[in-house]
Amino acid sequence: MKMFDIIARKRDGKALTYEELEFFVNGIVSNKIPDYQTTALMMAIYLNGMSRRETSELCMLMANSGDTLEFSDEYITVDKHSTGGVGDKTSLIVAPVAAACGLTVAKMSGRGLGHTGGTVDKLESIPGIIMDMSMEQFEDNYKKTGLCLSGQSGNMVPADKIMYALRDVTATISSIPLIATSIMSKKLAAGAKNIVLDVKTGSGAFMENPEEAFDLAEKMVDIGTANGRRVSALVTMMDNPLGRTIGNSLEVLEAAEILKGEHVGSDLYNVSVALAAELIHMTSGKTIGEATETARKKIKDGSAYKKLCDMIVAQGGDASVIENGDGLKKPLYTHEIISPEDGFVVSIDAKTIGIISMNLGAGRSKKTDPIDYSAGIRILRKPGEELKKGEPMAVFYSDIKDMSELEKKYLEACEISDTQLPERKLILGRVTKGKIEEY
Amino acid sequence: MKMFDIIARKRDGKALTYEELEFFVNGIVSNKIPDYQTTALMMAIYLNGMSRRETSELCMLMANSGDTLEFSDEYITVDKHSTGGVGDKTSLIVAPVAAACGLTVAKMSGRGLGHTGGTVDKLESIPGIIMDMSMEQFEDNYKKTGLCLSGQSGNMVPADKIMYALRDVTATISSIPLIATSIMSKKLAAGAKNIVLDVKTGSGAFMENPEEAFDLAEKMVDIGTANGRRVSALVTMMDNPLGRTIGNSLEVLEAAEILKGEHVGSDLYNVSVALAAELIHMTSGKTIGEATETARKKIKDGSAYKKLCDMIVAQGGDASVIENGDGLKKPLYTHEIISPEDGFVVSIDAKTIGIISMNLGAGRSKKTDPIDYSAGIRILRKPGEELKKGEPMAVFYSDIKDMSELEKKYLEACEISDTQLPERKLILGRVTKGKIEEY
Repeated sequence: MKMFDIIARKRDGKALTYEELEFFVNGIVSNKIPDYQTTALMMAIYLNGMSRRETSELCMLMANSGDTLEFSDEYITVDKHSTGGVGDKTSLIVAPVAAACGLTVAKMSGRGLGHTGGTVDKLESIPGIIMDMSMEQFEDNYKKTGLCLSGQSGNMVPADKIMYALRDVTATISSIPLIATSIMSKKLAAGAKNIVLDVKTGSGAFMENPEEAFDLAEKMVDIGTANGRRVSALVTMMDNPLGRTIGNSLEVLEAAEILKGEHVGSDLYNVSVALAAELIHMTSGKTIGEATETARKKIKDGSAYKKLCDMIVAQGGDASVIENGDGLKKPLYTHEIISPEDGFVVSIDAKTIGIISMNLGAGRSKKTDPIDYSAGIRILRKPGEELKKGEPMAVFYSDIKDMSELEKKYLEACEISDTQLPERKLILGRVTKGKIEEY
Repeated sequence: MKMFDIIARKRDGKALTYEELEFFVNGIVSNKIPDYQTTALMMAIYLNGMSRRETSELCMLMANSGDTLEFSDEYITVDKHSTGGVGDKTSLIVAPVAAACGLTVAKMSGRGLGHTGGTVDKLESIPGIIMDMSMEQFEDNYKKTGLCLSGQSGNMVPADKIMYALRDVTATISSIPLIATSIMSKKLAAGAKNIVLDVKTGSGAFMENPEEAFDLAEKMVDIGTANGRRVSALVTMMDNPLGRTIGNSLEVLEAAEILKGEHVGSDLYNVSVALAAELIHMTSGKTIGEATETARKKIKDGSAYKKLCDMIVAQGGDASVIENGDGLKKPLYTHEIISPEDGFVVSIDAKTIGIISMNLGAGRSKKTDPIDYSAGIRILRKPGEELKKGEPMAVFYSDIKDMSELEKKYLEACEISDTQLPERKLILGRVTKGKIEEY
C-alpha cells in the first residue's frame, strides 16, 4: 500500500477502505508518512468529504493510536464535551450533578486557548488543587468520589495531535467530518460509555451557522454510536456569553453558586441541567422530563455541590474558597463599565467578550502564555435586561491598570435597543442516533 | 500576507491575486513556505482549478524564479517542446530544419525517465559530444551555427522543480493548469520568442484523452501569448511509437536518415515537417502551406542535415558517425522478434514499447540509472503494414542476453488483425491563440 494511492483515491472522491485508513493513521503516528502527504490528503478530504463509514473508522483508528482509558463495568461512566464557548463553565456543574446521581465522571479536560477557556485552567484557580495527577491518583479519585476532573496525561490520541497541528496551518480545520473525528477520537479514547455533547452555534462558536452545528452533532453522534457508545448532543446558542462571568476563578464561583441553588432558570442553569439530564436519561431509563427533574433535585438538595467540594479536596485543593471566594487571588484593579444610555441589552458578542477577557489576563493568545486566574469580566446586564444611563453594566477585573481600550471594545460588543426584544431560544435541538428533535 | 490565507482562498474556489501568487512563488524558492503548506495548496488547485489569469501569472512568476536566458533581438529565436512520447526524435529534425531557415535554436533539453527518452541522452550517444557546456560555450555555438542543443545548466525555474517534486508524491501531477504552468515556465525561462508545442495524446502519452490534450494545448498557448511569445501547438497521436526506432543511438541515426531525405511521408517525417512549418510560419509571414514546403526543401537540399552535422562538430562530437552508424557503440546482442501469424499490424502500444526499450537498457527507471546508448528496438512492421508468419517484425538490441520475457511483452503489445484497417490520423489539430483547427 502506498500513501500516494490513498491521496489519489480521495482526490478522485472515492471512499477509503479500512485498510487504507489504518495505513494512514499508523503511518503518521510512526512518522513514516511525511507531513506534505498528510496535508495533501487533508485538503482532499476537506474538499471531497468522507462517508459515514470512513468517518467512524478513521475516528476509532485515531482513538486507538495511543493510550486509552478503560473502566470496569461496575462504573457507569459518563463524559461531557463542549465545542467551546465563552463563559461556558457547564462542565463544573454537569459533572458534579452526574456524580451525585451515582454516575462516574472520570474526565480529562483541556486548557484554554484564544477566546475560549478550559476547565483545567478554571479549576487551577483554586489554591492547592492538583490537575496534573498520576494515573494512579486519577483512578483512586474517581473510585472514591465518582468524580475526577484532571488535565490530559499520557500519550492520548497522538494521531489527532499530528493531524490537528497540520490542519491548523493548512486551512483544513473547518471540515465537519475532520472536526467530528478529532473531537470524537478523544472521547472514544477517554473510555466513557455515555457521552453528552454540547455543540455550540452562533457568533461566539466555531460553527457560527446552526445548520453546520446540527451537521457536526449528527456526525459525532453517528461516530459514537457506531463505536458502541451512547451519545446524544444538544445544539445550544453561543451568540452571547453563558452565565454572568468570564475568567477562571470567577467562573468557578459562578458554577458553585449554581450548585448552591442560585440563579435557577438562568441560561447557565438551564443548559447545565439539560446536559446533565441527557446523561441521566441515557443511563437510567428515565424520560428526559424525569431526568431533568432529577438533575434539578441534585442541585436543590446540595448533593451536587457536595460532590464538587469532595472532588476539590480529593485533588488537594482548598474547597472552602468556593463558599464565598475568600482565599482566592484578587485582582489589582476593578473597573466598572458604565452604561452610556438608557435601553435594553439586545446582545453581547461572545467572541469579542472572550478576547477582552483574554486581554485582561484570563486567557492565552499562545499556548505558553501565563494566566491571571483572578482576571475576567462580570456581566451585570445580560441580553434582555434593562440599562440605565450612568449605572454599571459590567465589571472588569485585571492586574492591568489601563482598561480603557478594552472598555471601548466591550461597549462596541453590546447591542442596545430602545425596546425589549423577545427572549431567544437557548437550546435549539437535540440530536440522538438517527434523530433530530427541536428542544 | 499569510500562506494560510492563500490556501484558504484557493480551498474556497477563489482566484488568487498576482500578489498572492508572487508571495507563494517567492516563499517556496526562499524556503520560507514549508512543504506541507505547498502540497495543501497544490491539492486545492488540483480540485478547484485556476483561472486563465492565475495560470498565466503563476507561470511567469515561476519562469522568473531563477536564471533565465535572454537573446538579442538580432536572433529570431525558436523553441520546440513535446509533452513526451516513445520514439519521439522530432527535436533532432525540427531544430536543424529551423536553423537551416536562418532561425536560431538555442535550446536546453532534458534527460529521459521512465518510458520516454530525452534529447540530451540521444545526442550523448555520439562519441565526443559535450551536452553539459558552459553558458559561454552555449552562446558561442548558437551564434556561430544558429543551432545549439544542450543540457540544462544553471538554476533555471527552481519554483517548478520544488512544485513538481512535491506534486509527484502527493498525486497532484495530473492537473492541467499545473502541467501547463510547469511546461510553459521552462519555455518562458528559456527565452525563445517563438515556440511550437507538440502535445501528445493516446495510450503512450501523458494525456491519454484527446480532449484533455487540446485543453492542455489551449492553456499553454494562452500562457505563452499572454506573456508575449508567439506560440502554436499541434495535438498529435502517441498510440504507437513515432518512427521505426526507440533507443538513443538508433533514434539519432533515424533522425539523420530523415534529414538525408529518407522516409519521406512517414509518420516521423510528417510530424517533424509540420512542427518545423509552425516555426517557419510564425516567423516569416508564410502560410502554413508555404512553410511546409520550405521545411521539406530544407530537408531535400541537405541544408538541414548540414546544420545537424555542424552542431555536432561545434559541440565536440564526431559527426561522421551519423553517416552510417560506424563508430557508435554496438550492442552485445541482437534479437529478432518473429511474427507468430499472418496478418496486419493494427497497433503497437507505445507505452509498453517504451518500457521494453527502457528494460533493454535504453532508459532509466530512476534518475541515477546508467544508460546503454546502443540498446533499443527497431520496428520492422509498423501499424498498417503486413506481417508474414515466421518473418521478423522487430529487432531488439541490448547488452542483456535473455530478452525472452521482453519479447513476450512486445508480442502482447502488438495488435494483429486479418484485414488492413484504414490509416488513422496522426495530427489531430492545431491550436493557436484563441483558435482550434482540425489538421
